[in-house]
Amino acid sequence: MDTDLMSSVDLNSDLGEGFGRWTLGDDAAMLGVVSSANVACGFHAGDPASIRRTVRLAAERGVAVGAHVGYRDLVGFGRRDLDVASEELQADVAYQIGALAGLAAAEGARVTYVKPHGALYTASAVDGRVAADVAAAVAAVDPSLKLLGLPGTRSLDAAAAAGLTTVAEAFADRAYTPAGTLVPRREPGAVLHDPDVVARRMLRLVTEGVVEAVDGSPVEVRADSICVHGDSDGAVAMARRVRELLDAEGVAIAPFAPAGGRVRADR
Amino acid sequence: MDTDLMSSVDLNSDLGEGFGRWTLGDDAAMLGVVSSANVACGFHAGDPASIRRTVRLAAERGVAVGAHVGYRDLVGFGRRDLDVASEELQADVAYQIGALAGLAAAEGARVTYVKPHGALYTASAVDGRVAADVAAAVAAVDPSLKLLGLPGTRSLDAAAAAGLTTVAEAFADRAYTPAGTLVPRREPGAVLHDPDVVARRMLRLVTEGVVEAVDGSPVEVRADSICVHGDSDGAVAMARRVRELLDAEGVAIAPFAPAGGRVRADR
Amino acid sequence: MDTDLMSSVDLNSDLGEGFGRWTLGDDAAMLGVVSSANVACGFHAGDPASIRRTVRLAAERGVAVGAHVGYRDLVGFGRRDLDVASEELQADVAYQIGALAGLAAAEGARVTYVKPHGALYTASAVDGRVAADVAAAVAAVDPSLKLLGLPGTRSLDAAAAAGLTTVAEAFADRAYTPAGTLVPRREPGAVLHDPDVVARRMLRLVTEGVVEAVDGSPVEVRADSICVHGDSDGAVAMARRVRELLDAEGVAIAPFAPAGGRVRADR
Amino acid sequence: MDTDLMSSVDLNSDLGEGFGRWTLGDDAAMLGVVSSANVACGFHAGDPASIRRTVRLAAERGVAVGAHVGYRDLVGFGRRDLDVASEELQADVAYQIGALAGLAAAEGARVTYVKPHGALYTASAVDGRVAADVAAAVAAVDPSLKLLGLPGTRSLDAAAAAGLTTVAEAFADRAYTPAGTLVPRREPGAVLHDPDVVARRMLRLVTEGVVEAVDGSPVEVRADSICVHGDSDGAVAMARRVRELLDAEGVAIAPFAPAGGRVRADR
Repeated sequence: MDTDLMSSVDLNSDLGEGFGRWTLGDDAAMLGVVSSANVACGFHAGDPASIRRTVRLAAERGVAVGAHVGYRDLVGFGRRDLDVASEELQADVAYQIGALAGLAAAEGARVTYVKPHGALYTASAVDGRVAADVAAAVAAVDPSLKLLGLPGTRSLDAAAAAGLTTVAEAFADRAYTPAGTLVPRREPGAVLHDPDVVARRMLRLVTEGVVEAVDGSPVEVRADSICVHGDSDGAVAMARRVRELLDAEGVAIAPFAPAGGRVRADR
Repeated sequence: MDTDLMSSVDLNSDLGEGFGRWTLGDDAAMLGVVSSANVACGFHAGDPASIRRTVRLAAERGVAVGAHVGYRDLVGFGRRDLDVASEELQADVAYQIGALAGLAAAEGARVTYVKPHGALYTASAVDGRVAADVAAAVAAVDPSLKLLGLPGTRSLDAAAAAGLTTVAEAFADRAYTPAGTLVPRREPGAVLHDPDVVARRMLRLVTEGVVEAVDGSPVEVRADSICVHGDSDGAVAMARRVRELLDAEGVAIAPFAPAGGRVRADR
Repeated sequence: MDTDLMSSVDLNSDLGEGFGRWTLGDDAAMLGVVSSANVACGFHAGDPASIRRTVRLAAERGVAVGAHVGYRDLVGFGRRDLDVASEELQADVAYQIGALAGLAAAEGARVTYVKPHGALYTASAVDGRVAADVAAAVAAVDPSLKLLGLPGTRSLDAAAAAGLTTVAEAFADRAYTPAGTLVPRREPGAVLHDPDVVARRMLRLVTEGVVEAVDGSPVEVRADSICVHGDSDGAVAMARRVRELLDAEGVAIAPFAPAGGRVRADR
Repeated sequence: MDTDLMSSVDLNSDLGEGFGRWTLGDDAAMLGVVSSANVACGFHAGDPASIRRTVRLAAERGVAVGAHVGYRDLVGFGRRDLDVASEELQADVAYQIGALAGLAAAEGARVTYVKPHGALYTASAVDGRVAADVAAAVAAVDPSLKLLGLPGTRSLDAAAAAGLTTVAEAFADRAYTPAGTLVPRREPGAVLHDPDVVARRMLRLVTEGVVEAVDGSPVEVRADSICVHGDSDGAVAMARRVRELLDAEGVAIAPFAPAGGRVRADR
């Protein structure tokens, strides 16, 4: 067993996804479990005041803050394909990163990474033009920002080509094909619901670099971060179970892009 | 005549006030005249792509970029009173500054000052609570940001109390009362339309620190910046006339908060 | 005891207050209890698809559909004062009524009344200009629409002056002053939480036309409809308790503005 | 020459496309030329107050009012593809028709037809699912509404299948292929700019049912309405030239779906 594999992993979750009167998920609870918070930036979810509260809690707990950038589509929660031209998309991404960074600065924190959300996540995974736009925008705003995404996708390829540090993630509650890709949601068994099963799979992923595919075969999966979902029933419970098992087995949970030491360095 | 008064003054104008398909004013032309651009941040006007284009032009011409923060009211163009609680208002201001800063960073530029827009400008001038919220938000995001506003108002008082550098502005096309305040818009003669008259008034303001009030009396007005409006008919022509006369009389036009030397200093 | 008072009363509640991914309250449950649904129209809450689902459920259950019109302020849930000029306000109200009517028509239902929401409810209660604008808009769209509001307010006065039928409502969970007005929310005891207490108060209101004020004195309150809140914890339980007690005491629950028999009468 | 062909034709244009502070086109001038106004409904453009002003002018001039329904995408002006599920799309269309109908009712006018806008126009022309959703929504709201679109498209096919009356339109300033379809905008010569050429083409279309295709061949085109664009430079001048020539040649300009006689018939 490779010691490197064992030492540490990041847990990330989507947070800050309320909007005004509407709340979604339990940010305070989840921030006690994860090490990285993908924080909504106002386009698919997130009003400034609730974003700021989430960032404050994250900073207090040493959780890294990432910009969860999405399409401008509140009513569709950023989950609908939208054909955004390159100039618009790059500006939308830069705007959202900056907006979150402004709120983070107000809390003495920093944005250290970016993760596309929803339909933009999917589009940047499969569409090289979209991936290049996202990467270009991130690099233009701050080339030290890391990009979080699925390994083997256009998203990480484009980010690497743009000079960004890329971080590969795995999805805790999703089944994998023998080829190492996610089983599409519409197929049976695509989503896993048993916290114990999920936790054991993630332990194996971290310690062996392997998950069991839907056909039972072992498949190598590279992941520096594990995504646990934030807005489903039982999300916090599942995330806790994953963390508990990793903790118990000596795997440290730590952000891949910590804010520590850089906080307010500009002052 | 005080030499200090003669040396230099800033010209500022509201820019970036289109939204998608809709344009307003002629940013490219105005950026050839002014030294500071109050750029809309998306809440009262300004989509990310058009904001970015305005910031790029400003950077190319050495025009300082300020965050023109407003209420979240696109349809009302930020001109309607909105009762925003302190937590929300502070977060809204930080969000907008950050968003513009993100776009500025993508263009190698920096936001160096903040000016409230429309109803927020008015509210922060007369309402100490609103003024304090704006000042607190600006200081929390970046205490080196300057605040631009009307001298003698709650806005600049609160900004100073929060440790911010304040910059007083005069309005080129507005009449003044003998007390040095603006004649309300609803009163006759409140708005001046003759570019030559306006230009001569501003020359006197800069060189003597005095404007002629509506009753003909001279009134002392302190101003480090002159606001020329960007979206009315003849706006560019009036701004040009002011600049031409000041240039001809040896008054330099220069930003009060230049971006020079600080660009991308964080890299 | 006046038999008229005993015969029947309406129960109304705010529904359709989700927006896309975000839900609020339990519309399906509440539509099993109330007789009139104040349905959000998209300005403070309500996306078209969820509004339509709520209208469909209401129609299936014989619940009357009212337009819950508000300020255009999604992030503030229509609860923030907004200074809207008369032309804008009248158009905003007409737009919202029409939008809901379009969705209602698609479900074979009709909008039969209007109730202002949140800050617009408050403003139309105390500000004659706002009240007149709302009334004018409602009358212009369809003078057979009824207006629901607090008795003794500008809202109902203006509606009556505009020729509209007015309907007075009482708030089930709110304390009353000896003058018959609501105890402001910021004061202790303003909001009642015990379902049994609330139910007994509403029974007395319906059967005697009286509620007990905060000082223990009886105060006459006129109400053709009782508002039960839809979005707080225990809202459905409290509404059910009110209905159960009224049912048990022989008070029929029936809409003041039924849609029955008028459905699609225009076809 | 067929007398029917000569008797009359409709001219339609996109109007009401401002939003708050932003204006687009010259509605007052265009309403002196066209017989049908495709009025924005708030999703891609159009705030309620400006929509209402446009509807009022249209009613005063006897111009028919149609609902120009679009995707919810203000910043993209409804011109970007958006993947909207059937339930959402049908509700969005019903909401917009109703909203415009509410404003029309407030002006004593009626909505008599529907025309999809921008990306929704294109999608409903080529995608049967989208076309069926639009048609279903229109029919559900009011089956007497007519649907305006390109002949030979899914849009009109689906509308006819849903029992709606369909109206075929031609584009005054667009070149046609020998097959009778529009030359794509990206190809040279796709858009015509000479008002005289355009006017003569439309006269031939109306009187002979033929336009000259890009290769010089005559192509039969069926059209009960001619679309003249409202927001480009020279739009009003071109529309006037078309109308003048048709007038001079004895072709009446009249709406295909007049509101006359049905105004406020529901009262």
